[in-house]
Amino acid sequence: MTDISHPSKTKLLEAALQVIRAKGYSATRIEDICAAAGVTKGSFFHHFKSKEDLALGAANYWSAMTSELFAAAPYHDHADPLDRVLAYVDFRKSLLEGEVEEFTCLVGTMVQETFATDPAIRDACEASISGHAATLEDDIAAAMALYGIAADWTAKSLALHTQAVLQGAFILAKAKGGAAVAADSVDHLHRYITLLFARPAASQATH
Amino acid sequence: MTDISHPSKTKLLEAALQVIRAKGYSATRIEDICAAAGVTKGSFFHHFKSKEDLALGAANYWSAMTSELFAAAPYHDHADPLDRVLAYVDFRKSLLEGEVEEFTCLVGTMVQETFATDPAIRDACEASISGHAATLEDDIAAAMALYGIAADWTAKSLALHTQAVLQGAFILAKAKGGAAVAADSVDHLHRYITLLFARPAASQATH
Repeated sequence: MTDISHPSKTKLLEAALQVIRAKGYSATRIEDICAAAGVTKGSFFHHFKSKEDLALGAANYWSAMTSELFAAAPYHDHADPLDRVLAYVDFRKSLLEGEVEEFTCLVGTMVQETFATDPAIRDACEASISGHAATLEDDIAAAMALYGIAADWTAKSLALHTQAVLQGAFILAKAKGGAAVAADSVDHLHRYITLLFARPAASQATH
Repeated sequence: MTDISHPSKTKLLEAALQVIRAKGYSATRIEDICAAAGVTKGSFFHHFKSKEDLALGAANYWSAMTSELFAAAPYHDHADPLDRVLAYVDFRKSLLEGEVEEFTCLVGTMVQETFATDPAIRDACEASISGHAATLEDDIAAAMALYGIAADWTAKSLALHTQAVLQGAFILAKAKGGAAVAADSVDHLHRYITLLFARPAASQATH
């Protein structure tokens, strides 16, 4: 795991999150990261062997940060597992604020660029996306049991689909320069899950 | 519009589609494009002022090629507009074949990288995605009228959502190195549209 105890290392990882989400991974230079972090190139190479090493550290740092954010989020508090899943979707919608590069995904961006050329970065991005999706599986499976859903889809498949919708919503937000189109897609995802579980429309309207 | 009548220009545009989808836009060098096209750098600069000029040409070429592909596809032949929309989704699933860089999207890849740094490329990608989404709107609106759907969503919003799902499905395919996860998300999209229009489950099972 990445040791993020050193202040300048944390600054470099935070800078990587900012710069790579705004410019993409390939266009990001080590000099850009150092400038954004306010540290020297010597300091960079004290902590990271290369830009790829920084990208791997940034993917792990992103996974750790987002894990903490989602673990502490209030959507877990609902008694009904379907409410927890829908509140997760609503929570994702609430995060669509600020500049596009502030609410979009580091690992979705990096894997888009590196999937065919850098297997180590691709695998770190895959682990981040699939690891986050897996945190939704238990609630989806519990909702399927509670609502008596005999489906031709699995909890795992729906969990991954939520991430596909979010990653695609980010691309549309980038194309259109704002969050509104992404929020519409997250609303479609909310509506899909409500329909899948055949929840009455009145209940859907309260969300 | 791009003049693609010259053979070496077409070769360069075809090469741009291949190389950018595999390596990403920023990592692609003019030399990579020339090598893939089998043309000289002199020929490149005869046709394009710069890598950005090629990217703009490639986005327009992509829009023209995909417009032709989708206009000629058999999903238009169904009498029921909902069948046309669902057959479009099935057609998209049927395209998920071969290598990941062969079935993923040029403009989704380019906008991911350039949205904050190159407004001209971003706008060309936006026009390509939104232009394709718009081709679905009439069928969705006709299906809403035919099935008596009084919705809190619009035909335009659902059309854009189909593109969000596809773009996100491509990212998951890149992360996981194969089409299966993308096909699962397209199945979820098919199921969502079926549920939205309250089509009986038996009809859904025939797809």
